[in-house]
Amino acid sequence: MTRRLHVLNGPNLDRLGKREPEIYGRTTLAEIEALCRDAAGPDTVVFRQTNYEGQLVEWIHDAIDSDAAGLVINPAGLSFRSIPLVDALRMFTRPVVELHISNIHRRDALHQHSLVSTVATAVIAGLGARGYATAIRSLREMLDNAAN
Amino acid sequence: MTRRLHVLNGPNLDRLGKREPEIYGRTTLAEIEALCRDAAGPDTVVFRQTNYEGQLVEWIHDAIDSDAAGLVINPAGLSFRSIPLVDALRMFTRPVVELHISNIHRRDALHQHSLVSTVATAVIAGLGARGYATAIRSLREMLDNAAN
Amino acid sequence: MTRRLHVLNGPNLDRLGKREPEIYGRTTLAEIEALCRDAAGPDTVVFRQTNYEGQLVEWIHDAIDSDAAGLVINPAGLSFRSIPLVDALRMFTRPVVELHISNIHRRDALHQHSLVSTVATAVIAGLGARGYATAIRSLREMLDNAAN
Amino acid sequence: MTRRLHVLNGPNLDRLGKREPEIYGRTTLAEIEALCRDAAGPDTVVFRQTNYEGQLVEWIHDAIDSDAAGLVINPAGLSFRSIPLVDALRMFTRPVVELHISNIHRRDALHQHSLVSTVATAVIAGLGARGYATAIRSLREMLDNAAN
Amino acid sequence: MTRRLHVLNGPNLDRLGKREPEIYGRTTLAEIEALCRDAAGPDTVVFRQTNYEGQLVEWIHDAIDSDAAGLVINPAGLSFRSIPLVDALRMFTRPVVELHISNIHRRDALHQHSLVSTVATAVIAGLGARGYATAIRSLREMLDNAAN
Amino acid sequence: MTRRLHVLNGPNLDRLGKREPEIYGRTTLAEIEALCRDAAGPDTVVFRQTNYEGQLVEWIHDAIDSDAAGLVINPAGLSFRSIPLVDALRMFTRPVVELHISNIHRRDALHQHSLVSTVATAVIAGLGARGYATAIRSLREMLDNAAN
Amino acid sequence: MTRRLHVLNGPNLDRLGKREPEIYGRTTLAEIEALCRDAAGPDTVVFRQTNYEGQLVEWIHDAIDSDAAGLVINPAGLSFRSIPLVDALRMFTRPVVELHISNIHRRDALHQHSLVSTVATAVIAGLGARGYATAIRSLREMLDNAAN
Amino acid sequence: MTRRLHVLNGPNLDRLGKREPEIYGRTTLAEIEALCRDAAGPDTVVFRQTNYEGQLVEWIHDAIDSDAAGLVINPAGLSFRSIPLVDALRMFTRPVVELHISNIHRRDALHQHSLVSTVATAVIAGLGARGYATAIRSLREMLDNAAN
Amino acid sequence: MTRRLHVLNGPNLDRLGKREPEIYGRTTLAEIEALCRDAAGPDTVVFRQTNYEGQLVEWIHDAIDSDAAGLVINPAGLSFRSIPLVDALRMFTRPVVELHISNIHRRDALHQHSLVSTVATAVIAGLGARGYATAIRSLREMLDNAAN
Amino acid sequence: MTRRLHVLNGPNLDRLGKREPEIYGRTTLAEIEALCRDAAGPDTVVFRQTNYEGQLVEWIHDAIDSDAAGLVINPAGLSFRSIPLVDALRMFTRPVVELHISNIHRRDALHQHSLVSTVATAVIAGLGARGYATAIRSLREMLDNAAN
Amino acid sequence: MTRRLHVLNGPNLDRLGKREPEIYGRTTLAEIEALCRDAAGPDTVVFRQTNYEGQLVEWIHDAIDSDAAGLVINPAGLSFRSIPLVDALRMFTRPVVELHISNIHRRDALHQHSLVSTVATAVIAGLGARGYATAIRSLREMLDNAAN
Amino acid sequence: MTRRLHVLNGPNLDRLGKREPEIYGRTTLAEIEALCRDAAGPDTVVFRQTNYEGQLVEWIHDAIDSDAAGLVINPAGLSFRSIPLVDALRMFTRPVVELHISNIHRRDALHQHSLVSTVATAVIAGLGARGYATAIRSLREMLDNAAN
Repeated sequence: MTRRLHVLNGPNLDRLGKREPEIYGRTTLAEIEALCRDAAGPDTVVFRQTNYEGQLVEWIHDAIDSDAAGLVINPAGLSFRSIPLVDALRMFTRPVVELHISNIHRRDALHQHSLVSTVATAVIAGLGARGYATAIRSLREMLDNAAN
Repeated sequence: MTRRLHVLNGPNLDRLGKREPEIYGRTTLAEIEALCRDAAGPDTVVFRQTNYEGQLVEWIHDAIDSDAAGLVINPAGLSFRSIPLVDALRMFTRPVVELHISNIHRRDALHQHSLVSTVATAVIAGLGARGYATAIRSLREMLDNAAN
Repeated sequence: MTRRLHVLNGPNLDRLGKREPEIYGRTTLAEIEALCRDAAGPDTVVFRQTNYEGQLVEWIHDAIDSDAAGLVINPAGLSFRSIPLVDALRMFTRPVVELHISNIHRRDALHQHSLVSTVATAVIAGLGARGYATAIRSLREMLDNAAN
Repeated sequence: MTRRLHVLNGPNLDRLGKREPEIYGRTTLAEIEALCRDAAGPDTVVFRQTNYEGQLVEWIHDAIDSDAAGLVINPAGLSFRSIPLVDALRMFTRPVVELHISNIHRRDALHQHSLVSTVATAVIAGLGARGYATAIRSLREMLDNAAN
Repeated sequence: MTRRLHVLNGPNLDRLGKREPEIYGRTTLAEIEALCRDAAGPDTVVFRQTNYEGQLVEWIHDAIDSDAAGLVINPAGLSFRSIPLVDALRMFTRPVVELHISNIHRRDALHQHSLVSTVATAVIAGLGARGYATAIRSLREMLDNAAN
Repeated sequence: MTRRLHVLNGPNLDRLGKREPEIYGRTTLAEIEALCRDAAGPDTVVFRQTNYEGQLVEWIHDAIDSDAAGLVINPAGLSFRSIPLVDALRMFTRPVVELHISNIHRRDALHQHSLVSTVATAVIAGLGARGYATAIRSLREMLDNAAN
Repeated sequence: MTRRLHVLNGPNLDRLGKREPEIYGRTTLAEIEALCRDAAGPDTVVFRQTNYEGQLVEWIHDAIDSDAAGLVINPAGLSFRSIPLVDALRMFTRPVVELHISNIHRRDALHQHSLVSTVATAVIAGLGARGYATAIRSLREMLDNAAN
Repeated sequence: MTRRLHVLNGPNLDRLGKREPEIYGRTTLAEIEALCRDAAGPDTVVFRQTNYEGQLVEWIHDAIDSDAAGLVINPAGLSFRSIPLVDALRMFTRPVVELHISNIHRRDALHQHSLVSTVATAVIAGLGARGYATAIRSLREMLDNAAN
Repeated sequence: MTRRLHVLNGPNLDRLGKREPEIYGRTTLAEIEALCRDAAGPDTVVFRQTNYEGQLVEWIHDAIDSDAAGLVINPAGLSFRSIPLVDALRMFTRPVVELHISNIHRRDALHQHSLVSTVATAVIAGLGARGYATAIRSLREMLDNAAN
Repeated sequence: MTRRLHVLNGPNLDRLGKREPEIYGRTTLAEIEALCRDAAGPDTVVFRQTNYEGQLVEWIHDAIDSDAAGLVINPAGLSFRSIPLVDALRMFTRPVVELHISNIHRRDALHQHSLVSTVATAVIAGLGARGYATAIRSLREMLDNAAN
Repeated sequence: MTRRLHVLNGPNLDRLGKREPEIYGRTTLAEIEALCRDAAGPDTVVFRQTNYEGQLVEWIHDAIDSDAAGLVINPAGLSFRSIPLVDALRMFTRPVVELHISNIHRRDALHQHSLVSTVATAVIAGLGARGYATAIRSLREMLDNAAN
Repeated sequence: MTRRLHVLNGPNLDRLGKREPEIYGRTTLAEIEALCRDAAGPDTVVFRQTNYEGQLVEWIHDAIDSDAAGLVINPAGLSFRSIPLVDALRMFTRPVVELHISNIHRRDALHQHSLVSTVATAVIAGLGARGYATAIRSLREMLDNAAN
């Protein structure tokens, strides 16, 4: 049976491929969506991006209501300050993989400590756009494992 | 003459009754709205919830423009970081009761110090869903008192 | 059957009505005691004030030993530093409502963060002298609820 | 050839002229827009206000895509905490003037240190509504200079 | 007409003359009381010492009720942490001189910053036992001055 | 010749055996007093408990005046903030053993760093009620040693 | 009638044009003086530079005594630590524009928070040498406005 | 041609499978080594564990000298304080993946911020023992990519 | 035999009587000098003011070289940051009374903690201009005492 | 049946008796080992010292594997920073007594707060070399107690 | 060809040999000047001392203008707070050796972290008066080296 | 008679000449050893390097036991956190020169404040590999001086 995996992206990620390529690489968000679907195999991917904190919160609610099997989230600039996001993720009882394209721990103080990490199941940072595929595969392994 | 009391709710409160019941109890937001109308007696209640900071700010503007007599606000996760909310409330010159369902002061560091408290008239925390009725009644007492 | 509710008041509250009326209002402690008895309905109120931390600690012990149903406490200046008070309240397993006449969160740094809040069931601040009646009523609601 | 200058305004600035006039003066946002067009001379002004962080982020994207020559931004309450705003501005490679109506450095701790200042080209604060005209003129001088 | 000046002493000061003479000198509290009476000239001195915070608070109340013209207070170890003392002194509207026998600013971190100083009229530290006489004389000068 | 050892206990310790037994065990203070007398052998034990900081200060003065050979003190909640206690102990020139029933260093931030430890001769924490006997025996060993 | 505007410059600014041109540009202080006189129109400019804090303080006194209409000050390295400067500016009751050539908020921690900003009327930073002309013009607008 | 990948493990990881299984799972280090070899495909794996900081430093030197293609490192308890480790990794110019079995960002303050992360290429945390295979695969993808 | 007492005044004190009279009163520095000579009786007073830190340092050297019997110093804005002043005073082995006209401990954070206090013999703050006379008299008492 | 008690000593303790005798006394480590065996009665003592963190970690592993009944550990300079030690001790499920010869809480900031204390069962500090015997006896009492 | 080396000395160093000899030794500044000339060999030494920050800044400007080959600076009490000094040194592009007679890192918190060190080429502290000769020789070695 | 000087080097210094040459230069450790022997003249040099904290501690013990006349130590990455090293050096009563090749005070926060500096006699940083020769010569001067 096919599972549904939600991939949620936060502010400014619609600019990927155009924005500071020396940090974020040259892959666009559309190409990343393709990478994710590819990595998901038979599982369905719901792939979304928004610049609004409120929208991101509601998509997490939607993931809960639509019985998503797992979540990959790249909260971008909202990682570091958004408590509503933390509160919403705490309600989601399935595995959550937090993903950052760059290694945020190497960056300046503003971008170093993610609040979201304190509620995620796992954190992957610094693998570039390919990290999304790694996150999807890791999520699927966790789900396979839990299913056995 | 009937007065209008605005009750504004922030992010994730639409999930009440489903979300971490050991912290927030099992009452839904619809039931809380009923509690509020009940406690308001002859006064009118405008009851709203949003997951967007911007919307919350605009509803405070709306409360000012529509001459609301008082405000009950549960800013939820926005309590702790939102300066736009603080700025908006500072413009509202009638009484404001800040309400939290749980006693935020017992929680983890992220959820302990509300910025909104520094501009509210009064703060009520830890009374559960019933706290809303207490907030409405307290607001009405203040207004009755000021009217005499 | 009548329940016993203890109302404990800390340092300087015997001066209420005389002290900084722009912050604390003009109601005296005797008038507040009357408000409490009124709000308590059939329940008995034990109403006390002291300027000694040690006395406050012993009155909490007394509330435990005499099987008080609940506690309203306004620890005043002891709220912010007294660990013996925190330790004593932790031993009291019934509901505790912490009350402050003014909204302490709006005040200067010294008076902003109450240690007692980290062990109270609920916190009410900024409702003026009427807050005592609100606290009593809230306590009674909790007890009624727990009894059902 | 006419250049396009974007002027973006953040939360609560739609209330200008009504809100705390002792801090922000009595000029409305519409009057400020007129001031800006006047100061822009032959250059075109795109003038916008929003209470949503997400909208502000997207208007910065829009400034990039529509090849704006420069940006004046008054991020208001979002100045102090919004990392998505900082991230978006970092992608805009033309000059950015951050503007504050009041001198934020004289205000309380919450309103003292703007994150946006760490990525702006220049900062102007405390000149009142007239500061907008100063910001436009300064932006135009920078552009004239760079053009020579 | 004779004025009444209250001189209040906090914890451990009953040990003066015996305690760490290299810091506090060899004068006893009884000798200090004599110094005070001497310096007071025609004015009456009420001289007291206690090891209890609560007692000190009540003696400040007593100074208010008995219409004391001014207060000299050496809060000793309570200087650095007691908010009830700060609250009580805030109610006393006549001049208050805070006195320390040693220069507390030269001592270790625990004894360096007195909370009481933030509400006292004047602070004198480091003059030894003679500082009491200086404090009394200074208080009397202030009162004489205010009387003219 | 018999020596006198003073054992002083601070706030809430009169509740031992009743209070949070998972932290403090089930032994009562009376049983602890017996343990102490037993461990003291031929030496006399003066065993006291109070909930008042002022009383504790005066009992330390009393230990000085009555020529106590050594002191065991469990300052409980006063350990962490009481400077008068620190000042009083500094005057006592014989050995002082500070005792805590639980290992305070494992507890929450409020209960982690004792001021009293900075003036005690030795500190023992986490041995439960038996720690009192250990403290008495250690004190006696120190005294025996110093006597030789 | 002509007004007198004082322009005061702090340490190292006599090296402008020679010093770290990638931060401060290539304009010399003499050229900046010309820019100021130009921007002042009919108003008189008193233009001075010193490397001594004491001299800067006395020139502010001089501005007070000679009835200067307004002040532009670039305190350079003294901005961040000099309390005598803050004290002197507090005595000057006319408008003060603080000017920095570079955007100090983008620089390292040492150069980020100006004490002088907490007493200036307005702050302009990051406009390069042209910022002086902007400051003069802004000062004149304020004065024109106040005069009407 | 086969590449060499070094996998280095820090203190206490020889206890895996025995130690706090609710945090670290039940897989032993030997099983993890097998996982790694499996994930490495044709590439050679050098797999080591030590409880000595000095040994770990020397194995990084060894990786440099023996021309390792990449490094996976789980520094365990040394992650949070070891500057020699940071210095050694800075000399290794090939990709480094830092791996943690648990999500360290969810843990207590001591285990939350890894110094090693500030010099690693990528960080993976919270995927359990399987994370090692993910790290190896990610490293190989990076190397394949760089090779093209 | 007549003794020489040096009275040194720091930045902005030449403006006394003109500057913020609600904080510093209306007495001029010349009047204060007269007060000092009056209080000095047969002793000689060397009375000086400067706005330069360097000058103040050299006058302290001068006090040492000319064998001054004691020093009264009001370092004003230099109190809070000047380490050269602290170093110079440490070389002066006679008594030093630090004087502040206002009670600096009641003021804002910038003006609250004097470095000079850590090396002064005694500190007097909040007695207004009369405090100078008190400082002189206290200094003379100390010298008389030491002489006996 | 005889139990095995491990006594582990950290860096520099092999120098005991030679090193700073005013802090650590004159007893050598060999004499301390004898004290321990004496205090252990029928129980076996495994007594070790190392200057290597890695060795200490492995001896804790060894204590686990060889089924030690309890542990006395003096981690010396490793107490304050070593997370590998903390991690290793967390795996040892029998009682651990942390011992310090001097009262570390009286010492400088570097030596004041032991990380090891947050995972030890009990802490003893300041009893000198005799503290080892006390630690052994306390450990044995705990074990006897648990056995009953 | 002879090179010119500037040796600049800050506040209170004119008192060397008289001031706190247990910290600074008994050598006078004149003797140090001789030591420097001796160590300089054929190179010319410009040796200066001032108690004024402004003077020190101008002497650094002078070193730049007169093409000094290198600088030895002992900023004394100005090391720890003077940003104008830091700014001036940043303009000097030749080697700068910062010298302290005592090991400032062993001293109290006020004297521990030099701002000047963050812009100096090298730092030498704790070698006493001889450190000046070491600094001169080190400077000359650097210059010789760079010349080859 | 020949004296023995010990030169001890910490982690990663065996990589000198290969590691980050833009910071540490191109001289190897073997070349540095030669420099040291050269600078030592008739004195013997014991020159050692290790990556283990424990080894470094033991070599300091060895320096004590073998009666070394002085110590040069470059603790590298252990400088900033190792308390065992601090403790060991405190036992060595002869002069200790701490040496850093680069000026650590200019580097990032991790590498800025050396604990070892608080116990060294002198500190030399930023002179490159030649600093070792300077350290040896300085040590010899101190010893010569003490011998006279």
